[in-house]
This record gives sequence, C-alpha cells and structure tokens, in this order.
Amino acid sequence: MPQPSLPVIAVTVGEPAGIGPEIAIRAAWQLRHEVRSVLIGDTAYLSMLAAEIDPAISMMGVSLQALRHQGLPASGNERLTIIDCPLNAFVIAGQLDPRNGRAVLQTLDVAIESVQRKWCEAVVTAPLQKSTINDAGVAFSGHTEYFAEKTYTGRVVMMLASEANDHLPQALRVALATTHLPLRQVADAIQFDDLWKTLEIIHTDLRSKFGIENPRILVAGLNPHAGENGYLGMEEIEVITPVIKKAQEAGMQVSGPYPADTLFQQKYLEQADCILAMYHDQGLPVLKHASFGLGVNITLGLPLIRTSVDHGTALDLAAKGTGYADVSSMLVAMRVAADMVNKQEK
Amino acid sequence: MPQPSLPVIAVTVGEPAGIGPEIAIRAAWQLRHEVRSVLIGDTAYLSMLAAEIDPAISMMGVSLQALRHQGLPASGNERLTIIDCPLNAFVIAGQLDPRNGRAVLQTLDVAIESVQRKWCEAVVTAPLQKSTINDAGVAFSGHTEYFAEKTYTGRVVMMLASEANDHLPQALRVALATTHLPLRQVADAIQFDDLWKTLEIIHTDLRSKFGIENPRILVAGLNPHAGENGYLGMEEIEVITPVIKKAQEAGMQVSGPYPADTLFQQKYLEQADCILAMYHDQGLPVLKHASFGLGVNITLGLPLIRTSVDHGTALDLAAKGTGYADVSSMLVAMRVAADMVNKQEK
Repeated sequence: MPQPSLPVIAVTVGEPAGIGPEIAIRAAWQLRHEVRSVLIGDTAYLSMLAAEIDPAISMMGVSLQALRHQGLPASGNERLTIIDCPLNAFVIAGQLDPRNGRAVLQTLDVAIESVQRKWCEAVVTAPLQKSTINDAGVAFSGHTEYFAEKTYTGRVVMMLASEANDHLPQALRVALATTHLPLRQVADAIQFDDLWKTLEIIHTDLRSKFGIENPRILVAGLNPHAGENGYLGMEEIEVITPVIKKAQEAGMQVSGPYPADTLFQQKYLEQADCILAMYHDQGLPVLKHASFGLGVNITLGLPLIRTSVDHGTALDLAAKGTGYADVSSMLVAMRVAADMVNKQEK
Repeated sequence: MPQPSLPVIAVTVGEPAGIGPEIAIRAAWQLRHEVRSVLIGDTAYLSMLAAEIDPAISMMGVSLQALRHQGLPASGNERLTIIDCPLNAFVIAGQLDPRNGRAVLQTLDVAIESVQRKWCEAVVTAPLQKSTINDAGVAFSGHTEYFAEKTYTGRVVMMLASEANDHLPQALRVALATTHLPLRQVADAIQFDDLWKTLEIIHTDLRSKFGIENPRILVAGLNPHAGENGYLGMEEIEVITPVIKKAQEAGMQVSGPYPADTLFQQKYLEQADCILAMYHDQGLPVLKHASFGLGVNITLGLPLIRTSVDHGTALDLAAKGTGYADVSSMLVAMRVAADMVNKQEK
C-alpha cells in the first residue's frame, strides 16, 4: 500500500530535566502513523530515555551538519527522526543545570531553520525553563517572543484552543489582545492600532492556517457588562467598537463588544470560530476549565505554524522517573499542528 | 399523612412587563410540594397570568394590611399565596411603564418585611428593570444595594453559584472581591481591609447559611499567573497574601493567591467550597459557561437569605406572550434558597 505523505512536525523537547523529552517521545511514537515527528534534542539522551519508556521505540539520529546540505532522510513511519542538538552536561531529571541552557535554545533555532528550509512543516514546543536559559547568560522572555524575534515578526497573537470533549460540545479558540501585563496596565494597553492589528492577524491566520474561509470572531468588552453604555468604562465606546466597525467595513465577520461573563455560554460559542478576549484572566480561565488539561497554545502571526502544550516542565514529576507525566496535552498540540499543516494555504 | 413543614420563600415577581411574573408563577407552581412560595406582586395581574399559563394553578391573594397583624394564613401545598402589591398602570408585556416603578420597589420592601416579621424565611427576586424605577423618580442602583441599605448592612458580597450538571462534576461557587467597577479601577480597589471583610463574610455565611462547618476558600490572584512573584504586579505580595495569612491565623481554611487561568481546573475545584475572584470578568465567565444558564446569584452578608436569577427581564420574550421564557434559572434560585433555609443555623 503506498504511504500517504504525513505532515512533518519539528518537536523541540524542551528542558531536558523536565517532562518535555518524555512526553515528546511518547506522543511522537503514539502518533507515528499520523505524523512524521522530527524530535529536536540530544540524540544520545533521547535514545536512552526512549529505551526506558518502551524498548519498541525505534529512532534515527541525524546530524545538523549533514542536513544543512540535504533534506531529511526517509525514515518510514515505524521510526522517529532526531535532529541532534547535543547537551553540554549530564542530565539529572528534576534538577536544572544552566550548562544546558544554550543547548535548549539551540533546539529552537534548529526548529525554526527546519521549517524555513522546508525540512519540516510546523513546530511543536515542549515546555522549557526560562530561568535555565537566563542563567546561561542569554536574555530570554519566552518561546513566543523568541520565535517572533528570530523570524523578524513585529507582532504575534497568543491563542489557546481546545478540541471538543465530553464537557465541551465543540472546539473553542480564545485569542488575547494583551497577554502578560499587570492588571493595572491592561486598560491603557487597549489601543486602536494594536487591537486592529491583532484582529487582522487572527482573521488572516484563521484563513491561512486553519482553512476557515470567513472566520467569525466575537470580541469581548474590556469592562464588566462591556462597559454598560459607558457607565462602567469608556474603552468599549472609544476604542473597541470603532475597531470592530473598521473590521466589519473591511468585510470581516467580527462582532461585539460582548460582556465577557455571558460570552462563553454555549449559544454564543457555537456562533464563533474564535473569541477575542481583552486580557489573560478574562479569556483563559474558561478555556482551561473546559479543555480539561487538553489546551493547546498557538502562536498566530508567525510565518510558520507553531503550537505548544499549555503546561510547564513539571520538574517534580520528572524527578520521579518516567511514567508519571501526562502526555495528553502534547498529543493534542501535535494533532492540532498536523491539522493546521493539512488545512493551510499551500 | 402529616405535612412536613416546607421552607417559606418570598418571591418578588420583578418588572411586570418582563418575564419575571411568568417564571415566578411557573417555578412556584412546579415546586409547590418542596417550597411554600409567597409571591409578592399584583394579585389581579398574577391571577390573570396564571390562568393563561395553566388553568390548574390555584392562588390565594392576601392583603398586606391584614398580614401586618397576623401571620400568613395556612394554604396547603396545592395553592400559591400572593401578598398583594397593586400596580398603578395597565401592563403591556414588553413595554416599560414608569408609573409601575414604585409598585415594583414596594415588592422589595414587602419581601424584606416578610422575612423580618418571620412570615417568610428567604427572598428570591425575579429580574426588574432599574430604569423603570429611576424613571419613577427613585434613585435605584440595583437589588443588592437596595437590600443592603434597607437592612442597614454595610457590606455585602456577590456570589454566583451553579449546581452540578452534565458538564460540571460538582457545585461551583464564585464570590467577587469587586463587582461593577471599570477594569482600570480594579487594582486600586484591592485593599487589605476590604478584602479581609469580604473573606470574613464569605466564611461566616458559608457556615451560617450553607451549613459548611469549615469552608475551604481558594483565592485568585489579581494579575496574570498571580503576579509571578512580583514580575507581573505587586498586589499579590502587598495585599492578597497578607490577607490570606491573617485568615489562616484566624483558623480559616483559606489559601492562595492562585493563578486564575488554572484555578478553575477540576482538580482545584474539587478542593473548594468557594472560589474568591478579584473581579467580575475573572470569575463569572467560567461560572456562566459551566452553569449552562442555571447560575444563581446569592447575596452574602445580609441578615436574610436572598437569591436571584442570573438573567434579565427579557422584554422581547415577554412581548411574545407567555410560554417562551425559560424557567430553569428561577427554579434553581428557589431550590438554592430553600436548601439554604434548611441548612442555616436556626
């Protein structure tokens, strides 16, 4: 039987002392008939770990030096490919070591390059520890910012998504107008140009990366009850509504601003491809409640597809050995990335 | 068979042109074997409406003048009692009439009096229209504020609750540290004394009105990731953590501050009798998402039990005639009030 071509996904394994390497290996192996995973990490360490997790797992390491001159070698779908990014220090699960900081960072560079060179079609990132990289002497504020900088992208939008589940009748996507800001700075950060560009990115990416022809975006207000006609704040009248009008005039299916407390009721969600929340704790509590640990973080606005798990390195779990980490979020992150590869404009 | 004594609940029927009277009648009739409902409204109008809804509904109007000198007459549980608060103008469903504003306000006064005189044991309020009362020349900012003022209560706490349902494995209660404030004023409103008093009210009322011996209260941070050790805001360090410490020293089971985005995951909710959110759109989106239209608004801190529906007057539905309104939230509001009556400290 001829093999249909599988989406090729670069998977950075994240902080080596955390659960990242284990969940990357498990998820890649479990999905090997749906996705061609290309793990980006230390070949020797990952091979050893794989043997501990399941002796059936088969792996093939390839060197970056060779790859720079040719594409990925064929592997069949019973074998995982690793692009080797060697670590500098022995790994003790659960214990951070700054000597490995630069090697972790290198996995991100290689992942970006692997997509730019068309070796891979998307990137999925396992969790890393910001402090390890900073302690290695490199200023680093997060995956998202790093990917933006390395791809010369001026603005990205953070979106979290959940597939439908027993508790959620349909997929839910929540994008954020502002992300990691102290609450007292949020109101001033809601500005016309920024919000307009955010909406443009969401609209463009839902079309180009999700294959949604004319995405329906519902926009939350900033204030309780969306400001109640100005009684509870003016940002809806002064900023949000004008941006929505501009989007509508541009032919986009954007509406609002809606009161955030009722916006996440099923009757509204079923009319939406994406909810745009104004800030972190307005949008994410519902998503993380409803996703039951299966949320996926998707960075919109990048010139590449990138998803990640919505949890951290779980050093405490990693320290207990393999077999304790939950692979669910990683599986969803990889499936969502593969789905985006299949649906994107080619 | 001797009749066990049913909780006696005063139900204000709300704005007469909205769906309040219909849902009050339907819910009272449906629950007549669990609750003795005392509708507070215009006897003539409610009787006429009841006949239209279901000719089987049996009602008995009583006059306030007579009641002031005696208790509620016995009614049996196949008949609803109405305490008469006559309207001043003909009601056209869907059309507000300021001439009825003062009569609506009178239903609230009578409800409070009915509990103070021990005719009733709790109050459930159907939705009213603030503007009708204001247009009648009475400054009125909402049910909650009015009940606080009329009972000389300095501080109340708004809590929304949902019973367990197909999508929510267990009951959820969310209390708010601040309510209807523009978002830019929220951070400054998080102050030690206020937050401490709010926690005290929640703790006290969960004990005295819900029968929870030592309630477990999980407190959200104000900022994303609960401030991430001060990187994303100082309120957690300067205000919220000290208040939590004081509560713990007082023997209360209070913990936090927790990042709001993950706090509503099932593993945390199952450890909580109540979540204290710092502001409206941090706490209520999850509750209204998870309650599927069955949320109940409970005012803590009052010297009486008071619940209400979590929706509005739905004038558009009322205008279409009876039979369109959803009685679910009213049923839950009445059941919760009855449950609180049964569990309260006597």
